[in-house]
Amino acid sequence: MRITAVIMAGGRGERFWPKSRNNFPKQFLSLTDDGETMIQKTVARLSELVNTEDIYIVTNKNYYELVRDQLPELPDGNIILEPASRNTAPCIGLAATVIKKRCGDAVMLVLPSDHLIRFNRMFIDTLKTAVSVAEKGSSLTTIGITPTYPETGYGYIHFDGEDGCQAGVYKVRRFVEKPNIELAKEYVNSGEYLWNSGMFIWKISSIEANLRKYLPDMTSGMERIYDSVDTDRFTETVEKEFPLFRSESIDFGVMEKASDVYTIPGNFGWDDVGSWLALERINKTNEYGNMVRGDVISINTKNTIVQGNKKLIATVGVEDLVIVDTDDALLICSKDSTQDVKKVIENLKICNRNELV
Amino acid sequence: MRITAVIMAGGRGERFWPKSRNNFPKQFLSLTDDGETMIQKTVARLSELVNTEDIYIVTNKNYYELVRDQLPELPDGNIILEPASRNTAPCIGLAATVIKKRCGDAVMLVLPSDHLIRFNRMFIDTLKTAVSVAEKGSSLTTIGITPTYPETGYGYIHFDGEDGCQAGVYKVRRFVEKPNIELAKEYVNSGEYLWNSGMFIWKISSIEANLRKYLPDMTSGMERIYDSVDTDRFTETVEKEFPLFRSESIDFGVMEKASDVYTIPGNFGWDDVGSWLALERINKTNEYGNMVRGDVISINTKNTIVQGNKKLIATVGVEDLVIVDTDDALLICSKDSTQDVKKVIENLKICNRNELV
Repeated sequence: MRITAVIMAGGRGERFWPKSRNNFPKQFLSLTDDGETMIQKTVARLSELVNTEDIYIVTNKNYYELVRDQLPELPDGNIILEPASRNTAPCIGLAATVIKKRCGDAVMLVLPSDHLIRFNRMFIDTLKTAVSVAEKGSSLTTIGITPTYPETGYGYIHFDGEDGCQAGVYKVRRFVEKPNIELAKEYVNSGEYLWNSGMFIWKISSIEANLRKYLPDMTSGMERIYDSVDTDRFTETVEKEFPLFRSESIDFGVMEKASDVYTIPGNFGWDDVGSWLALERINKTNEYGNMVRGDVISINTKNTIVQGNKKLIATVGVEDLVIVDTDDALLICSKDSTQDVKKVIENLKICNRNELV
Repeated sequence: MRITAVIMAGGRGERFWPKSRNNFPKQFLSLTDDGETMIQKTVARLSELVNTEDIYIVTNKNYYELVRDQLPELPDGNIILEPASRNTAPCIGLAATVIKKRCGDAVMLVLPSDHLIRFNRMFIDTLKTAVSVAEKGSSLTTIGITPTYPETGYGYIHFDGEDGCQAGVYKVRRFVEKPNIELAKEYVNSGEYLWNSGMFIWKISSIEANLRKYLPDMTSGMERIYDSVDTDRFTETVEKEFPLFRSESIDFGVMEKASDVYTIPGNFGWDDVGSWLALERINKTNEYGNMVRGDVISINTKNTIVQGNKKLIATVGVEDLVIVDTDDALLICSKDSTQDVKKVIENLKICNRNELV
């Protein structure tokens, strides 16, 4: 069966401010030493499994130019633009509708655009297993990440180790929201929970049936969109119908409720690159533990992340800082305060300084 | 007797890098909230005692334009340009020579260009006392600063509290170099030592006699310069003679050796503004102890000095930092490491990046 991939690239993450902005979110940033952007890496790592003409990007219409610039190899018709943000369920429904019109039934991989995967061989092997499961029936499969510590910033997948459709593929009991630290420890120690990576694999027909069943409000709108795909009414129809869909995540709108849901534990060096702190995990650090990019002179500087821009940055006698320079804004943040960067953004919004948000 | 003032403005202090540069030293920076530069403040505070046409600036020839721009009210002939750096003795000798040609004998105040004085009334009163002492005889007087703590970064003046030419004017026993902390404590506790502020008051005839006596090498060169003052040969003569003078400070070249030397303790809120740390002493800080200039958003930031430039600076969860942004260089330094900024400058010199020094 034809394998298609849908990369969800509509996010507006604020955690990489001041490099990420409303008009330039994280998935379009280069955060690794190789210079590739997150979305470029996401597309590149699929090359062994999915043909370029079967890779779709769903993104906010404001990001069309960014996608076009960064992924010139993709057919223009594979860039699906959301006229409004409605979370992942309408996003996935829209992509499934387009693919159904073009391919009939097919396998559909759904992938975030802004994560990092270290071991691509194992990633592809995991996806191949998931594809074989999807082809066999009408199940929905999600990739879970084997947790390595009690992270409180992710959702978890509770799975049943005794019940699966084949070796290494387990029945999902339930999806659970971000836990507190005590619960997170319980989850990790139980051996029954995986991190929810937001990667899904199913047939178009499987997800379509589940969307009709659990989000029936979307059905007639999606049918009108289906009729317009690859006609000159498509954009107009999406702009009319899509904003009417209720904002809903696929996890809680469908996966929680569906009966035939499996998870495959992934061990392929997944990193959600969730904040500036990730840069020292995913890039080389020097002998003093500094992760430095750009024109930087460091004197007695330790465990510091410096993302330079055009000017010289001199750091003297500092440690555990995150320093990010851009053309119009500079962030100097202690490593244990990266969560508070959002307060800067709130302040900017309150002051109507939207050009900096 | 006519009162003249010589402001020594040839210094190239590196301690305000990256704002201060070889081609833009500290005395030309504005470091206080009122926007006036250090040298502008130095000139302004003399207005009650010295006529504008009797105020002279001695500076490196590279700084002519800076002086001209910042002090447009000064006669052009009062800007005396050193073709080379030869420390304070030749600098003072050159200025004395020019003033002698123009005024005959006169009182000469010698003042640094980059210090701050909080109580101008008391400063002027101290100078008036010094002027009266200078007029009376052939003594050399220096202003000492009553020390408030055992500073190891200043030279000290050992004075004789029992021996003076009038109340509040004491005989100098000796000048001592920067002490270690133990000695500094002894000095401060003894009540017999003052900080050496580098401010001097004498008659032209008094300093001239002492220069002839203790630095006789300079005499013939200074006489040739004297002959050229206010002729079209002046610049040429200074460029020929001045570099031949031996580099020598007035403290050790003359004051140490001269017999008729007095000091007047000053209590006028003197601050040498010796490093970025001074900014929080001399400017307002907010309720969190931050001294902030420019476009700055501070979240959980304490006791931090931020000298912004053109872009927004956001500080999050940091304390005890010095942050200085300029067009081509950014400094992020812990407060206890400001002495190490010179290591950055050394690094720049080694790498031949002289445009940043």
